[in-house]
Amino acid sequence: MKKQAVVLVSGGLDSATVLSMAQAQGYECHTLSFDYGQKHNAELQAAQRVIDAQKPASHRVMSIHLDAFGGSALTDSSMSVPETESDGIPNTYVPARNTIFLSFALGLAEVVGAHDIFIGVNAVDYSGYPDCRPAFIEAYEALANLATKEGVEGRPFTIHAPLIEMTKGEIIQAGTNLGVDYAATVTCYQANAQGEACGRCDACRLRHQGFLDAGVQDPTRYVEGFEWSNV
Amino acid sequence: MKKQAVVLVSGGLDSATVLSMAQAQGYECHTLSFDYGQKHNAELQAAQRVIDAQKPASHRVMSIHLDAFGGSALTDSSMSVPETESDGIPNTYVPARNTIFLSFALGLAEVVGAHDIFIGVNAVDYSGYPDCRPAFIEAYEALANLATKEGVEGRPFTIHAPLIEMTKGEIIQAGTNLGVDYAATVTCYQANAQGEACGRCDACRLRHQGFLDAGVQDPTRYVEGFEWSNV
Repeated sequence: MKKQAVVLVSGGLDSATVLSMAQAQGYECHTLSFDYGQKHNAELQAAQRVIDAQKPASHRVMSIHLDAFGGSALTDSSMSVPETESDGIPNTYVPARNTIFLSFALGLAEVVGAHDIFIGVNAVDYSGYPDCRPAFIEAYEALANLATKEGVEGRPFTIHAPLIEMTKGEIIQAGTNLGVDYAATVTCYQANAQGEACGRCDACRLRHQGFLDAGVQDPTRYVEGFEWSNV
Repeated sequence: MKKQAVVLVSGGLDSATVLSMAQAQGYECHTLSFDYGQKHNAELQAAQRVIDAQKPASHRVMSIHLDAFGGSALTDSSMSVPETESDGIPNTYVPARNTIFLSFALGLAEVVGAHDIFIGVNAVDYSGYPDCRPAFIEAYEALANLATKEGVEGRPFTIHAPLIEMTKGEIIQAGTNLGVDYAATVTCYQANAQGEACGRCDACRLRHQGFLDAGVQDPTRYVEGFEWSNV
């Protein structure tokens, strides 16, 4: 039997790259996406396009209503997404998001017999998010091996975060070499219903700069009238 | 402002006791229950009765469909709950359940400004479940303080598991002293729609023995015709 992995897929550029990396390493991949009340449903449609293109062994979408908690500009309709760079932890931080996502991935890994979990966190561009840092990933792996039947019985889990120290340009270069179709992905924090990006939020700026740095043409679909040459 | 806590409430005897302990310690409590596709919906009704009786500051029920994963007799309709004691990790183990529950509790704690999370895990009766052991709770606390804005900014979280080393009899004695109404709670793994317990599963046996050990009359409602004297 091929070795099994669980891969978190958001519909963004990073997780599409991670999925292609896991597949290139020979893993049979079980993907997991989340409907967590995010304002930009374009994300889930993008995840489905990534799945259609990269064809993992299984795919599940879990509905978890983090919007019931509030506290983030990504889920709380009373908060707006910032269009300027901010210091410290941005208000687009969703409380405990990656902790929650990894916990579901861990449960699924136990059920499908996987000992490898892949997540596309990145500490370079998202240094303001505590749950994107190497120390968090290490602590999660330690937890996973105490939390589970497999872990305590000596068949440990590995949490793979292959992008964690890569720049956006390096990620795009790596994914392009593996054949990832980035036109399928959506990164924008406030993409519209057609999946078109705003070009103005932090996420759009980081993504576009990544394509420039990688020397790859930016395939992103932006809202009508938007041109980087006018920014 | 009173100190805030998040308390996980399942509708069982243990978490009702934990809630009363947190309240007795002066915490304003925000409770969290989960609809995770468990076969016994009686659990959620019991949680509501506990909430009605103990009146925390806020209460939320999160729907998370762990039944989409399968792998446990508690959520998978193709598996049956064992009626005899089993060695090792029982098939009623739900993959990563407490890890997932604590992750939601952590997210809610960040939003409501709590630094204290209470969970009713018990290592005495449930030694077969890895996520009920002290090492798991310690690892989770370490993770929480790396995973969150509050944690990394030096305002750490404490995961309280006050029952972890107590026997069921001791738990019932403590809760009785705090005025917990155990008739509201349901422990049975296969309670019926009216919340009546089977009297035959591991959970029923442990609970009944607890009342005997505590010298407290067992207020549990059992299915018609069931009598401990006939067992």
